Amino acid sequence: MSGDSFSFELHATDAHSAARLSTFHTPHGPVDMPAFMPVGTQGTVKGLTVDAIRATGAQMILANTYHLALRPGEAVVEALGGLHVFSGFDGPILTDSGGFQIFSLARNTKITEEKASFRSHLDGNLFELSPERAVAIQEALGSDVAMVLDHVVALPNEPHVVREAAERSIRWAIRCQAAQKRPDQALFAIVQGGLDPELRVKSARRLAELDFPGYAVGGLSVGESPEEMYQVLDATVPALPADRPRYLMGVGRPQDLLEAIRRGIDLFDCVLPTRNGRNALAYTHEGPVRLRNLQYERDLRPLDAGCPCPACRHSRGYLRHLFMAGEMLGPVLVSAHNLTFYQRLLALARRAIALGQFNEFADERLRRW
Amino acid sequence: MSGDSFSFELHATDAHSAARLSTFHTPHGPVDMPAFMPVGTQGTVKGLTVDAIRATGAQMILANTYHLALRPGEAVVEALGGLHVFSGFDGPILTDSGGFQIFSLARNTKITEEKASFRSHLDGNLFELSPERAVAIQEALGSDVAMVLDHVVALPNEPHVVREAAERSIRWAIRCQAAQKRPDQALFAIVQGGLDPELRVKSARRLAELDFPGYAVGGLSVGESPEEMYQVLDATVPALPADRPRYLMGVGRPQDLLEAIRRGIDLFDCVLPTRNGRNALAYTHEGPVRLRNLQYERDLRPLDAGCPCPACRHSRGYLRHLFMAGEMLGPVLVSAHNLTFYQRLLALARRAIALGQFNEFADERLRRW
Repeated sequence: MSGDSFSFELHATDAHSAARLSTFHTPHGPVDMPAFMPVGTQGTVKGLTVDAIRATGAQMILANTYHLALRPGEAVVEALGGLHVFSGFDGPILTDSGGFQIFSLARNTKITEEKASFRSHLDGNLFELSPERAVAIQEALGSDVAMVLDHVVALPNEPHVVREAAERSIRWAIRCQAAQKRPDQALFAIVQGGLDPELRVKSARRLAELDFPGYAVGGLSVGESPEEMYQVLDATVPALPADRPRYLMGVGRPQDLLEAIRRGIDLFDCVLPTRNGRNALAYTHEGPVRLRNLQYERDLRPLDAGCPCPACRHSRGYLRHLFMAGEMLGPVLVSAHNLTFYQRLLALARRAIALGQFNEFADERLRRW
Repeated sequence: MSGDSFSFELHATDAHSAARLSTFHTPHGPVDMPAFMPVGTQGTVKGLTVDAIRATGAQMILANTYHLALRPGEAVVEALGGLHVFSGFDGPILTDSGGFQIFSLARNTKITEEKASFRSHLDGNLFELSPERAVAIQEALGSDVAMVLDHVVALPNEPHVVREAAERSIRWAIRCQAAQKRPDQALFAIVQGGLDPELRVKSARRLAELDFPGYAVGGLSVGESPEEMYQVLDATVPALPADRPRYLMGVGRPQDLLEAIRRGIDLFDCVLPTRNGRNALAYTHEGPVRLRNLQYERDLRPLDAGCPCPACRHSRGYLRHLFMAGEMLGPVLVSAHNLTFYQRLLALARRAIALGQFNEFADERLRRW
């Protein structure tokens, strides 16, 4: 691990799967893994106060380098005390590097060996992001975990495009590592390689040699099927060091989390629980509930009996009313509910791993949804 | 008072003004007055959970009969357990009668002696609201305090228009009183009469004879100057019974509250703190702060040092960022702050009345803003 501020503590591996129970220690506290990070794109988990984030059970959140560098700018975040003071969240914070947003949001993107050049999706201004700049921005933001700049491509794609992006991502990872100055920030590597298992394994092994304090699997959830994604994990995860956190970026649905945990992933982030929450789709233990449906108009039940979130103090009928009336409290409450659902799911997953029963737990859940 | 569930307890009248310190007891708990009710138009104080409303110090909230009757409909609210269960707010709730929204929001409004007919601002559907119907809707909603249906007119206006509306409002108040069935709901009368002091006094006296459990001054904040409004209060309030709560509807700015308390008003509601909060205007003890201004970009200070609200755990710079980035948390936090500001102002006002120093307190505040 880089510096003494971070450590990975493996408590148990599931008896019948690759699922792992562990704790990732950071300068801003521990993270019990498998863990899910709510996405705080612009330095805020949309609609939730810091207390509300904490109440979902989340220990660690994610913020987006691309968005914060564009607005308000990393210098402003730094002047306002860095991400922890800025957002008010004093737990661990991970920043992505911007690689995925350059791929998905930016306009007129041009990638050379030196850097990515692109226009802001906000105002069309020209930006440049090199590996060195990605590290410098994340050091100014002051996250606990920074990510290397990677080159993300759409899937499916030409083999040579996927290969070149994966190889460039390794070269950029090396440059990021060399550029790192802050000892209180852990820099995680990102394995690319599309759907090609050989390329993924080769990338993972090469990055493993570079001794990063954590490893991510990136470039997934970009158009491939869930089965293709699981196959990539089947190939990639065993090639990652066993004594480092493993992070699956931008994934996913509750079923994806269980399938990935089963394959040895420790850490997740995804916008789904909050984005769906804003759009009146609630996760429940019986499956998704689309709150705009007329069937919930006079439904007195909470979303999930026994859920401690603030939405579940109300009836489905009231939550439906909030969305039909365009009231901000609907997105606020159902975002909190969905994040609480994810955190409770991962808490149950951790317990199942500790009991050596993760496969049974996951299979039972997957049958029910 | 109507029924035994409500009582008005007068603790003190200020030594040098008409300001009163009192408690209004309701079936859902007491309200320390002078009091300010956050506006929960559609059964939600926009963006705030029930815990967040409570944390501002609010004891009583307002909901709008017009809005809830249109959507989801009072039958749905009733089926979902009535307003308290529906909204999750178990403190006292007041509903207005719809008179003001018929005046301000509805289309093609036609008022006869029998009733108001209008088209919904949502979908153009035809609605009719008679005094009897206004009471029936509010009884279905299940608020603690219901308001009589009144006839609101714009100011300035022709004297005969103002007079006819005020006289109709009295006849409608009598019909509302006769229509009331629930013993656990207090029905407040509303004094109309525009800017005509004689008409206001005559209306107040006539309504006082009818022995309502509370009295409102309505039809203000509809185009007149603050001074004209204060003059109406100078004339009207002394004509109201001293042993009943006095409620100034839809008012107002912090300075209006102090001027009205000075004249003997006990209860307020207004959308300003929440509407302004959603638009990045924050109330502070030094005056208003427009958070979009560039001067706050790197401002590390909270809005108000010592304010216990969730916004004041952040810097002005962070709050500004939330608004510039279009983040929902900006409106959520600054609404909570502004409501907390109002509640803290009224708590200080109550203390000043108890000390017999309300005028000094009010004058000092008014000088500062």
